[in-house]
Amino acid sequence: MSTPTDGSVGNKPSADASGSYRRHGPQFTDRIVAEPFGPAEWPVEAGRYRLVVSLACPWAHRSLIVRRLMGLEDAISLAIVDPLQDDRSWRFTLDEDGVDPVLGYRYLEEAYLARDPEHGIDNGVSVPALVEESTGLLVTNDFPQITIDLGIEWAKFARPGAPTLYPEELRAEIDAVNEGVFHDVNNGVYKAGFATKQSRYEEAFTALFARLDELDERLADQRYLAGDHITEADIRLFTTLVRFDAVYHGHFKCNRQKLAEFEHLWPYARDLFQTPGFGDTVDFDHIKRHYYQVHTSINPTQIVPLGPEPAAWLEPHHREDLGGSPFGPDGTPPEPLDGPLRPLPPLDM
Amino acid sequence: MSTPTDGSVGNKPSADASGSYRRHGPQFTDRIVAEPFGPAEWPVEAGRYRLVVSLACPWAHRSLIVRRLMGLEDAISLAIVDPLQDDRSWRFTLDEDGVDPVLGYRYLEEAYLARDPEHGIDNGVSVPALVEESTGLLVTNDFPQITIDLGIEWAKFARPGAPTLYPEELRAEIDAVNEGVFHDVNNGVYKAGFATKQSRYEEAFTALFARLDELDERLADQRYLAGDHITEADIRLFTTLVRFDAVYHGHFKCNRQKLAEFEHLWPYARDLFQTPGFGDTVDFDHIKRHYYQVHTSINPTQIVPLGPEPAAWLEPHHREDLGGSPFGPDGTPPEPLDGPLRPLPPLDM
Repeated sequence: MSTPTDGSVGNKPSADASGSYRRHGPQFTDRIVAEPFGPAEWPVEAGRYRLVVSLACPWAHRSLIVRRLMGLEDAISLAIVDPLQDDRSWRFTLDEDGVDPVLGYRYLEEAYLARDPEHGIDNGVSVPALVEESTGLLVTNDFPQITIDLGIEWAKFARPGAPTLYPEELRAEIDAVNEGVFHDVNNGVYKAGFATKQSRYEEAFTALFARLDELDERLADQRYLAGDHITEADIRLFTTLVRFDAVYHGHFKCNRQKLAEFEHLWPYARDLFQTPGFGDTVDFDHIKRHYYQVHTSINPTQIVPLGPEPAAWLEPHHREDLGGSPFGPDGTPPEPLDGPLRPLPPLDM
Repeated sequence: MSTPTDGSVGNKPSADASGSYRRHGPQFTDRIVAEPFGPAEWPVEAGRYRLVVSLACPWAHRSLIVRRLMGLEDAISLAIVDPLQDDRSWRFTLDEDGVDPVLGYRYLEEAYLARDPEHGIDNGVSVPALVEESTGLLVTNDFPQITIDLGIEWAKFARPGAPTLYPEELRAEIDAVNEGVFHDVNNGVYKAGFATKQSRYEEAFTALFARLDELDERLADQRYLAGDHITEADIRLFTTLVRFDAVYHGHFKCNRQKLAEFEHLWPYARDLFQTPGFGDTVDFDHIKRHYYQVHTSINPTQIVPLGPEPAAWLEPHHREDLGGSPFGPDGTPPEPLDGPLRPLPPLDM
């Protein structure tokens, strides 16, 4: 899946002739695994790879959460790109002199070109990306596989108390939830927002809210989406929910109601937000500036709304009453952050 | 005040070089009064004038509510324009053959040109407009004066039980409330929505929500804005509030919170909505199509959002507990509608 501007080739969202938004799949699907077999598998190794993310991007955000929950900060370094792409897409303008200090790159595109000289911005330059530090080669931009592999294949580098995010006995259930969440929610908001025909927008809107209603009901009496602990399914839903009222509700016209108006989804989302690894990886400033300033086809003025109030994310959620434990019976939360991410959401209003 | 596209000249919202939205004042300020004096005053007379409104426009909506509350339907006829203007602005395309059956016009501009051959679309063609039926001349587009005069000068044609909307003893208080509501709320949402510079948007947003907070507090223990009954002040605030979540929150980026998230303003607005003359003059379809399809400078795709759910407007408000009576001690509500307006809001989701 390619997400140069959260899901399109080049810097412009692409709607086809029918007015539908089409997401392109990831082009580099190599894996980094504990026991590599064959040329498309790379070995896990501390200090060898660099994870490149945008804090704005929900697909990249997943990998950032998993890295935190698993305690892989020392094993896999992190690069954060500017939330505003230019014509060459994601860039390291937040770093000194605009150059990533490890890779020496100005643009993420350089890692793609190093891997394939034919693959530049016109073919899609997306985050998350795992890049080999010594060679600067892009290894993978296969975001659904990246989070699964970070949770399983990197086990020997994981912190004590790390959760099991994709437990074998729940995989069928998690996969089923993820499938609906992907089409109708994660990608559904983009289909609504980038539709250029009313009917395509309405299809996406209807499917989105039908799915959210179903999830709201599912979460009425269980704390997490699958089983009693946080799993891959919760992470995938969270990165869309945390952006919902800030950008999808207005900018993408997903406005039947706010997330804050759902009976169960809203406390569920707050519960996750207040769990170490979730809220402390959220940057509403990057999120809002990215969506509202990059998508000039739907927001030509590039004005970034001041609302909504992020403080509500910190209100009590009372989801503990449903039982369950975030990290499993033997699990513990990750250490508080002192890195480049914000320890608290920016309450700048 | 001129409102060809709810407040701009021509069909495009106009922001000046500083990025601020500027509203133009009404150009035709003649009055229709009980005792005319001088050439700029016309006599009240049943069957002589036609009120031209857009159901989308909050400024025009005021006059429609006052006409209903005062029971002036038989005295003053009504024309409703298409919510979508074209290059010649407001048009009678909802009528048979696209011609107003009384005035014989295709465009409201024709009444302006009849009054002043130099005054066409480039100078602003706005609703509400009062037009003399026999001559087709525009009499006035002075919307703040129109509602005051409908409430007072037309007294001899008013229904029994009609309210006193601008009582002498409350005029100073009403004027003071209206002044703040006009700049920060009625016009404030436009200043936010049509700003082309971030700083101008933020100024308008901040003033808007500061004023809404003040009004919310004011309405905590009084049912209406001034005195114990509905007045001109309530009508002027209502026509903005009823559009808030449907268009201003998303389209104009007035998104600190929804109206539905205000503690007192939201029940207050529902109370009015459920009062005959208010909700039965609201057409969410016209409102949403107008804003989202006409303002291509801020919504180039012209996609019209499906949300939010209008059904919430009919939920109980419990404002009766605060005392007061909508139409005064001797007042009664207007008769139920069987005219061209919708008797209930369209619950089309």
